[in-house]
Amino acid sequence: MSKTVGIIGLGLLGGSLAKALVAYAPEYNVVGYARRQEVCDAALKDACVSMASTQVEDVIQASDIVVFALPPDTSGRVFEEKAHLFKPGQVVTDVASTKTNFSHSVYKSIPEGVIFVSLHPMAGSEKGGYEMTSKDLFQKATWIVLEDKDNPHWDASVAEEFDRMGEKLGSHIRRVQLSEHDGYLAGVSHAPHLMSSIIATVGGGGEIGHYRMQLAAGGFRDVTRVSGGNPSMWREIIMGNRQCVLKELNAVEREIEKLKVILTNQDEAGLETYLADAKKIRDTFADLMLK
Amino acid sequence: MSKTVGIIGLGLLGGSLAKALVAYAPEYNVVGYARRQEVCDAALKDACVSMASTQVEDVIQASDIVVFALPPDTSGRVFEEKAHLFKPGQVVTDVASTKTNFSHSVYKSIPEGVIFVSLHPMAGSEKGGYEMTSKDLFQKATWIVLEDKDNPHWDASVAEEFDRMGEKLGSHIRRVQLSEHDGYLAGVSHAPHLMSSIIATVGGGGEIGHYRMQLAAGGFRDVTRVSGGNPSMWREIIMGNRQCVLKELNAVEREIEKLKVILTNQDEAGLETYLADAKKIRDTFADLMLK
Repeated sequence: MSKTVGIIGLGLLGGSLAKALVAYAPEYNVVGYARRQEVCDAALKDACVSMASTQVEDVIQASDIVVFALPPDTSGRVFEEKAHLFKPGQVVTDVASTKTNFSHSVYKSIPEGVIFVSLHPMAGSEKGGYEMTSKDLFQKATWIVLEDKDNPHWDASVAEEFDRMGEKLGSHIRRVQLSEHDGYLAGVSHAPHLMSSIIATVGGGGEIGHYRMQLAAGGFRDVTRVSGGNPSMWREIIMGNRQCVLKELNAVEREIEKLKVILTNQDEAGLETYLADAKKIRDTFADLMLK
Repeated sequence: MSKTVGIIGLGLLGGSLAKALVAYAPEYNVVGYARRQEVCDAALKDACVSMASTQVEDVIQASDIVVFALPPDTSGRVFEEKAHLFKPGQVVTDVASTKTNFSHSVYKSIPEGVIFVSLHPMAGSEKGGYEMTSKDLFQKATWIVLEDKDNPHWDASVAEEFDRMGEKLGSHIRRVQLSEHDGYLAGVSHAPHLMSSIIATVGGGGEIGHYRMQLAAGGFRDVTRVSGGNPSMWREIIMGNRQCVLKELNAVEREIEKLKVILTNQDEAGLETYLADAKKIRDTFADLMLK
């Protein structure tokens, strides 16, 4: 009998996961919850779910694997409300980009025997909603399966199943320790996002900003690209990871101070070394991306 | 009789300008200087110059318009050495991305009657050298013609000629006041470049950096892209504009402090407003780019 995956929230990530499973992992039966009936109707019409409901309960009760794909704060709250509905052997997961809050909610309320293995498919876009979903959203994306081996609710064979699921969807699989995930992401995603917003504000804000931006080119375009992202989504991600983001902002300030000394002292060699070291790091990353 | 444009330095910008003039503004005769005979030979073989020399003097003496396209510090030094060779009515220009240093050298040594109108074609690439040149480097680029109306060496009709030249090469023309240019560029190019290097260093450096970068995605890729640029070229650009860059770094620090307060106080509305304001600025820039 095929397993049923129930997706709570058919936005960009949840809806794309439904489409991707139907297209690339047809051994799963997919059902879904959406708050609005129109989204349920659209998903049914697209045949990316075999059942859709505006009631979370219906989806939990129909599923072997329940994927929380609501905005991160909402997912945690809804899980806490509905945790009592889960049965031993049932699997809870989520696709949130920060893990501290949702896993905290889960560990607070999860019934005995229920399995929790968290997922972070690093896919997305500045534009959300079911209408933006694609079966190919996860192609070539990084698909993180979180490890938490010391926790009795974590299960190695479910983690392996999630590895295989990500592979079928075309993603690159990574395993990351749950407790370290948010710190890593603060460094390579959440703080860079805030810095991008800051650079847009400093370079393009104020009275002369618009005029200055007429002189901006590809560098400014790329450095500030992510600052064009959805403010409400990123507010939730960054605030949900604020302790780690604060650490990164402090580290950025220490680097700025170093560079201010270098510039003030006209330390040509110091500046070139700084830029060359950063380039070495970036070139390593470019190599990583090619794999 | 067609005017002769003499290009001092046939690297990425100078060599591309030679090729672009031959292709799109054939009313000009183009000659060029390169330090190495191989580059002279290559440019002659490509027929983008009618004469090439390893002696700056040859090019100055043959030209109506002399374009300094060496690394910015070198351009200033070479101009000071050769200024006495210029004749009244001859035009000096340059393609440097900062203007304070070169224009300082020019105004110190320029003989009476010689015209100076500076140019900043905002084109380039992380990879330099004659072998990377292209006749289409200036297509859709911003081509800044610098104004300095109060200076007797500045000439309005030459500035207009440069406007037309940029148009022929496919660029968007902007006029900027010479004294304000470097401050503007610090905000939308030089400080963003340094911040990109800092974000690469903080996110991807240190012991766990390589591991963290395995979790990085499109955001990190774009924010850090320019940090992969040539360290020696950017050292020269940034150090040449260090006063303006320092001001921008101070402004970035003030914004980081604001955001640290917002995060520490869990000020959800404050964070969303900050992100939304930055997005508004970035969206304006995206609109600008479409024009």
